[in-house]
Amino acid sequence: MRARTTSFTTQTAAPASGALDRWTLDRIARPLAGAKLRLQLWDGHGLTLSSGPPVATIHIRDRRTLLRIAIRPELGFGEAYTDGRVEVQGDLVAALEQIARALARQRTPAPVRLAPNDERRSRHNVHTHYDLGNDFYRLWLDEALLYTCAYYERPDVSLEAAQRAKLEHVCRKLRLRPGQTVVEAGCGWGALALYMAREYGVKVRAYNISTNQLAWAREEARRQGLDDRVTFIDGDYRTIDGSADAFVSVGMLEHVGPDHYDDLGRVIDRVLDPVHGRGLLHFIGRNSPMVLSEWIRRYVFPGAHPPALSEVLPGVFESRQLSILDVENLRLHYALTLKAWLERFEQHVDQIRVMFDERFVRTWRLYLAGSQAAFLAGDMQLFQVTFARPMANDLPWTRRYLYEGADA
Amino acid sequence: MRARTTSFTTQTAAPASGALDRWTLDRIARPLAGAKLRLQLWDGHGLTLSSGPPVATIHIRDRRTLLRIAIRPELGFGEAYTDGRVEVQGDLVAALEQIARALARQRTPAPVRLAPNDERRSRHNVHTHYDLGNDFYRLWLDEALLYTCAYYERPDVSLEAAQRAKLEHVCRKLRLRPGQTVVEAGCGWGALALYMAREYGVKVRAYNISTNQLAWAREEARRQGLDDRVTFIDGDYRTIDGSADAFVSVGMLEHVGPDHYDDLGRVIDRVLDPVHGRGLLHFIGRNSPMVLSEWIRRYVFPGAHPPALSEVLPGVFESRQLSILDVENLRLHYALTLKAWLERFEQHVDQIRVMFDERFVRTWRLYLAGSQAAFLAGDMQLFQVTFARPMANDLPWTRRYLYEGADA
Repeated sequence: MRARTTSFTTQTAAPASGALDRWTLDRIARPLAGAKLRLQLWDGHGLTLSSGPPVATIHIRDRRTLLRIAIRPELGFGEAYTDGRVEVQGDLVAALEQIARALARQRTPAPVRLAPNDERRSRHNVHTHYDLGNDFYRLWLDEALLYTCAYYERPDVSLEAAQRAKLEHVCRKLRLRPGQTVVEAGCGWGALALYMAREYGVKVRAYNISTNQLAWAREEARRQGLDDRVTFIDGDYRTIDGSADAFVSVGMLEHVGPDHYDDLGRVIDRVLDPVHGRGLLHFIGRNSPMVLSEWIRRYVFPGAHPPALSEVLPGVFESRQLSILDVENLRLHYALTLKAWLERFEQHVDQIRVMFDERFVRTWRLYLAGSQAAFLAGDMQLFQVTFARPMANDLPWTRRYLYEGADA
Repeated sequence: MRARTTSFTTQTAAPASGALDRWTLDRIARPLAGAKLRLQLWDGHGLTLSSGPPVATIHIRDRRTLLRIAIRPELGFGEAYTDGRVEVQGDLVAALEQIARALARQRTPAPVRLAPNDERRSRHNVHTHYDLGNDFYRLWLDEALLYTCAYYERPDVSLEAAQRAKLEHVCRKLRLRPGQTVVEAGCGWGALALYMAREYGVKVRAYNISTNQLAWAREEARRQGLDDRVTFIDGDYRTIDGSADAFVSVGMLEHVGPDHYDDLGRVIDRVLDPVHGRGLLHFIGRNSPMVLSEWIRRYVFPGAHPPALSEVLPGVFESRQLSILDVENLRLHYALTLKAWLERFEQHVDQIRVMFDERFVRTWRLYLAGSQAAFLAGDMQLFQVTFARPMANDLPWTRRYLYEGADA
């Protein structure tokens, strides 16, 4: 099994491909027409999908895998990759980008029906991904453990610098002033909450339902002497109470689900100062309503849904007369972030294989590479939406203040 | 009639108000509770709506007007103001802002049902407003005849400077380069088209259905020696053909109507370069779907509808996989623009009264003042939406380039 997983050249015992296999391969290839890829069967028979040289060859190891991919392309491909029954020879990200670009051309918006994420289900979803162990995430995230899109003022800065720039960019958009109060929904390992308290002198109540992340965040608050200004609360976003001058949520909306945007809007409306309250949501989105890859939802992010703007705006903002001040799409910043994560992941892949197993490594490799490819191909977006109460007139005249004094 | 129109103190022959009149006044006052206003009947009986001093007194001249306002508040108030049967003593804009703020607190999003604007109806709608005569608009618009929201880098710059800054801001967002082609839908008197050709060296095809505006724009193109690079076309946006690197529309979407966002999206999709095409829509919008004041739709802008973002995004962008890159809300810039317009309007009010009549003057005064108030009260928004084809990766890393080198 191990040998098949890592070797491209080993001859398998499978019988030579026949006419039916080749017909099936043609069917798989059809929606990918024009992609710079070669698809190859277990016996060397293959198809090159474009006239130019392919960026990679996708090896399909056996007939069962071929059929499975024909019937359920996304799930079949992902599961076979995890199992080593599909191998990608060449640049994995480039190959997945070719697939994403080919498929994106054929996309049409589809109504989204997903199981609602009630509080119990949300805890299960979050636990599945974010409680894999802080030691694991420390191997490949930046030092502050930011697991959301960084902000690259230039494409050549380090992940650390880009994550710090993201925190600063978010704080500037929130127009924080010392002594103000902030609620953060879904605070990860606490880096933004701590940054806001430390650099902007605000008081933060930060909510999360990942026990591992909360433990880390509280320890960090103590270590940095900020535990009088930052409170980390074990609680679902629906339980947020009290009041705040600003509301911020970075990388949580993807886990809320379309059935609960109204719940989130109700919470924001309840918490936010009725006159000068303002906020920011940062989330992975789409250009149009579409269901996330079934493979990702099953093996990486249960219950996740990156929404189109039109899915989010009515429930969260419009029904509360919250005013959209600014939307920024940072799509390519997430491609760079994921590139940095994947590089660090590969640097520590032996350790990670020992922590988990080879299937885990391949699942995460495909997830990180596939996500990078999806952002490069324009299939995924990263939206920062800044909003405010409708009658607040103390607004900056331009957005120049977001760019003043920062590293050019 | 003239005397009643302009005088606040003239005693009318109406009988003293009775219990029923006062009950009706109470009903009118109820949704305005807290507004810093005094409502006063023809015999001096009045109500002050807040504890503080009122910014203005609204005089209701007779019983018929009182009843009409009770039954159809927006339409009744507007018509009575035009007729001089309602007078506002004090600051008109401040009074209307008080009303807008009071009403905005009670707003709930409502489904919008409007008559479709087919090509014939669109021509009628546009003709009604924009073909009132170039001489009229020259009296109170800036020298380039820009009849859309200006961009105030600081609140103290002139209307002329703010309109020029708007043109520059739009061009920067479009990332125009010499030799590229631009389609403009709804070009007004042509100022943006001419600016793009002159300052950015692009070729522009600009569409409009206002004959007066087109005549002016073509003459300007000749005068400025730009008629080889700018073509002004008498045509509805639905007739736009050919191809372009960029698509821009400033102040037209308000006249398109919700039934036709899909038509507009189809046009953009047809025209725009399939790989690196990009564009910008600049339009008056709302925080949530709501019908425009019936008075405005009847007497000022037939067929108009300023949409919430959620109304526009699916038809125009999402169904075409166009990617939203940037949304900027310039609400308070429109309040300043309208303030400047109203001031110039009042400076030339005697001329305008001769061109039209007193009813026209009062209609336009209420429209300009009411619009300024609506932007101040957060009831109206001004959105600039920048978009691009989904796979174009030649994007600026930050929006800093929008702010570099411009007047600070």
